Amino acid sequence: MSVRHPLAKLPESFARGLASTNFPAAASSFAVSRRTPSHTRSLATHVPPVTQDSTGSKGPTAMVFLNMGGPSTTDEVGDFLSRLFSDGDLIPLGRLQSYIGPLLSARRTPKIKQQYADIGGGSPIRRWSEYQNSEMCKILDKISPETAPHKPYVAFRYANPLTEEMYTKLLEDGFGRGRGGRAVAFTQYPQYSCSTTGSSINELWKWRQRLEGKPTRDAGGDASGMIQWSTIDRWPTHPGLIEAFAQNIEAKLAEYPEDRRKNVVLLFSAHSLPMTVVNRGDPYPAEVAATVYAVMQRLNFSNRYRLCWQSQVGPQPWLGPQTSTTVEEYVSKGQTDLVLIPIAFTSDHIETLYELDIEVIGESGHADTVKRVESLNGSPVFIQGLADLAKEHLNSGLTCSSQNLLRCPGCKSERCAESKKFLAGDGQASLVF
Amino acid sequence: MSVRHPLAKLPESFARGLASTNFPAAASSFAVSRRTPSHTRSLATHVPPVTQDSTGSKGPTAMVFLNMGGPSTTDEVGDFLSRLFSDGDLIPLGRLQSYIGPLLSARRTPKIKQQYADIGGGSPIRRWSEYQNSEMCKILDKISPETAPHKPYVAFRYANPLTEEMYTKLLEDGFGRGRGGRAVAFTQYPQYSCSTTGSSINELWKWRQRLEGKPTRDAGGDASGMIQWSTIDRWPTHPGLIEAFAQNIEAKLAEYPEDRRKNVVLLFSAHSLPMTVVNRGDPYPAEVAATVYAVMQRLNFSNRYRLCWQSQVGPQPWLGPQTSTTVEEYVSKGQTDLVLIPIAFTSDHIETLYELDIEVIGESGHADTVKRVESLNGSPVFIQGLADLAKEHLNSGLTCSSQNLLRCPGCKSERCAESKKFLAGDGQASLVF
Repeated sequence: MSVRHPLAKLPESFARGLASTNFPAAASSFAVSRRTPSHTRSLATHVPPVTQDSTGSKGPTAMVFLNMGGPSTTDEVGDFLSRLFSDGDLIPLGRLQSYIGPLLSARRTPKIKQQYADIGGGSPIRRWSEYQNSEMCKILDKISPETAPHKPYVAFRYANPLTEEMYTKLLEDGFGRGRGGRAVAFTQYPQYSCSTTGSSINELWKWRQRLEGKPTRDAGGDASGMIQWSTIDRWPTHPGLIEAFAQNIEAKLAEYPEDRRKNVVLLFSAHSLPMTVVNRGDPYPAEVAATVYAVMQRLNFSNRYRLCWQSQVGPQPWLGPQTSTTVEEYVSKGQTDLVLIPIAFTSDHIETLYELDIEVIGESGHADTVKRVESLNGSPVFIQGLADLAKEHLNSGLTCSSQNLLRCPGCKSERCAESKKFLAGDGQASLVF
Repeated sequence: MSVRHPLAKLPESFARGLASTNFPAAASSFAVSRRTPSHTRSLATHVPPVTQDSTGSKGPTAMVFLNMGGPSTTDEVGDFLSRLFSDGDLIPLGRLQSYIGPLLSARRTPKIKQQYADIGGGSPIRRWSEYQNSEMCKILDKISPETAPHKPYVAFRYANPLTEEMYTKLLEDGFGRGRGGRAVAFTQYPQYSCSTTGSSINELWKWRQRLEGKPTRDAGGDASGMIQWSTIDRWPTHPGLIEAFAQNIEAKLAEYPEDRRKNVVLLFSAHSLPMTVVNRGDPYPAEVAATVYAVMQRLNFSNRYRLCWQSQVGPQPWLGPQTSTTVEEYVSKGQTDLVLIPIAFTSDHIETLYELDIEVIGESGHADTVKRVESLNGSPVFIQGLADLAKEHLNSGLTCSSQNLLRCPGCKSERCAESKKFLAGDGQASLVF
């Protein structure tokens, strides 16, 4: 299978999508009104209503997409890896993090740089994130006029735009610093892991402290005019997500001759986790499995399937079965009609364009019959789903899911505890233990 | 928490349920009619219709519950463990299985015998299985008259009644040996694992060969008057199962004072697997997670939750987080309102009555606030669900799920391949690779 050039996949409206992110700073209309939760969960914290009286300013709703990000050009690979290896939530190296991290990242940079060169010179994740977000905001402006206008922001964990850059832009655009305003941290990892969404939220909490002052432990507390944060922290079985995955799978299955189609084996592939993280009680493996099962239910179990895990690195044990090994083993048994489905990421990135397409499929010996479904990227069904989910969240009055208040049983991270308390708000902070 | 005596939990109808299993041998009416599948899955094998012409005999539909079983008295513990340690599907010891297995089982017998003594002198699993099955068959006779009468059988993997005993009884009762007849192997593990349901089906396939002659590779092929087998091999999110779990959880939550109820943490606990089995591609962890998510959706995510794994033994790595450690860690952090939910087993057994109740809860230091939900046991909602599921299967015309035709990517067991081909039938045997 040849390398797909990510740019070739961008829809025509992409340029418009990008352009729409250049909205005027310090918007003049602050339309966030008193919200009546349409449904409540018993554990949830309600965001206090934002009014002109309490904030003294007007402004739009900021929709902030959180993701790991990726280098948009090969020149950014070094910085990207350096940040990645210095993230103790992702790669816990203890007190030696600041020494070992740079060594590891420096050693891997040339190889990874070549991988990004091989997929077209950089990751398309920024372009897709900005496109998805701006398109979602356009829909939100229509279906949720009471919280309009919605303004798209992106905050990556390891690449530009970093959380700091996003937060600075928010402040420049008229949020916070005595002017209040509402922002939604919307993770683009559908399934929650402490090493992905957790790390992004911890980073958000850190920059909130640095740029807006001491934490108040109350996500909704904006008496001082701080930005009023809430988060969509997981959405593993949201109907829009499931429908988008299912439609892309059906489209890929349609490429096989009809007499072979029903015998194709579907291999759902998610980024693996070290067993130390799994055994600490990270909720990710179970949430990924929930997504897979929901997709198979939507497909009426039309095909046989397995869930497998990719991107293991280093000598320590990771959760398996490994995607690459699974493909090899099925191929060696004679099952060469296989469809790979990246189930834990919403746009193309190095793990799809390089690892699956070039390594796993390219080296399978059957690049014509081992295929990968399109990533969600510009899927209109997916983007409509994002908007529906965001509207549900905005209407709910919740600052986070109840699950987000529960630390992993084996968690020792005080940073996790503090950032969860920040999102919990004063009323629920005592629940975080 | 004191040991609950299993007999104390049996409903009044239990005696009637037991009595109903003493049905007359060689029943005279064979009511299995031509079945029109109400829905089909593309990969499924259809069972050829059984008619008097093709079988030359009449008979009921045999409903055979498969489970691991447990010793009903402490005297049976030795044999139980001996069989358990000689099962290569459960504990793969290679060519030394027949030497090492007995040594391991002999060493563990006194300890395990004491555990069964501590829970009242034996496992209630046989009594519950016979009760559930006979009650289900009564319902089936009403809601599926075209396949009535339904006759309940139990086949345990390691305890009486063993598969051999069940099969012999089937033959005595007028099934097979030129007389045909239909039997459904209904696993009582809702989530499929090669080490549980797979092992039971392999055992069934072995005894079919021994007692009915050479395999024909066609589960439906009964031209020779062999028993026509089909299987319900997994049902992780069946609505009856989910509803029964949810009702038992709600009942347990109601025992907490109202002001604490919403802050109770739910800990779903399933038997763990060695990582060698997980990494081979066993579907069990993902199917267990699907059950958990379905239950939480039914509960509208009323409480925070985690999935954890129990019963690890030996030095090799198993899937975590461990149930016992999870309870210890949450308790040590101050969260003492915990509800344990055995999510992968449908009746009480040593892992609930001893491991959870006596070890985990008993040693938690908070036996008043760390609780366990009732097992499904005699739940009428659960038994109605079993009947609904069985009726769907009987109507479907399928010999097994499409998933059952897919071996694990890392599977090397020829026994697995052959038993899957047996269930696949001639038309689909080539799909099993």
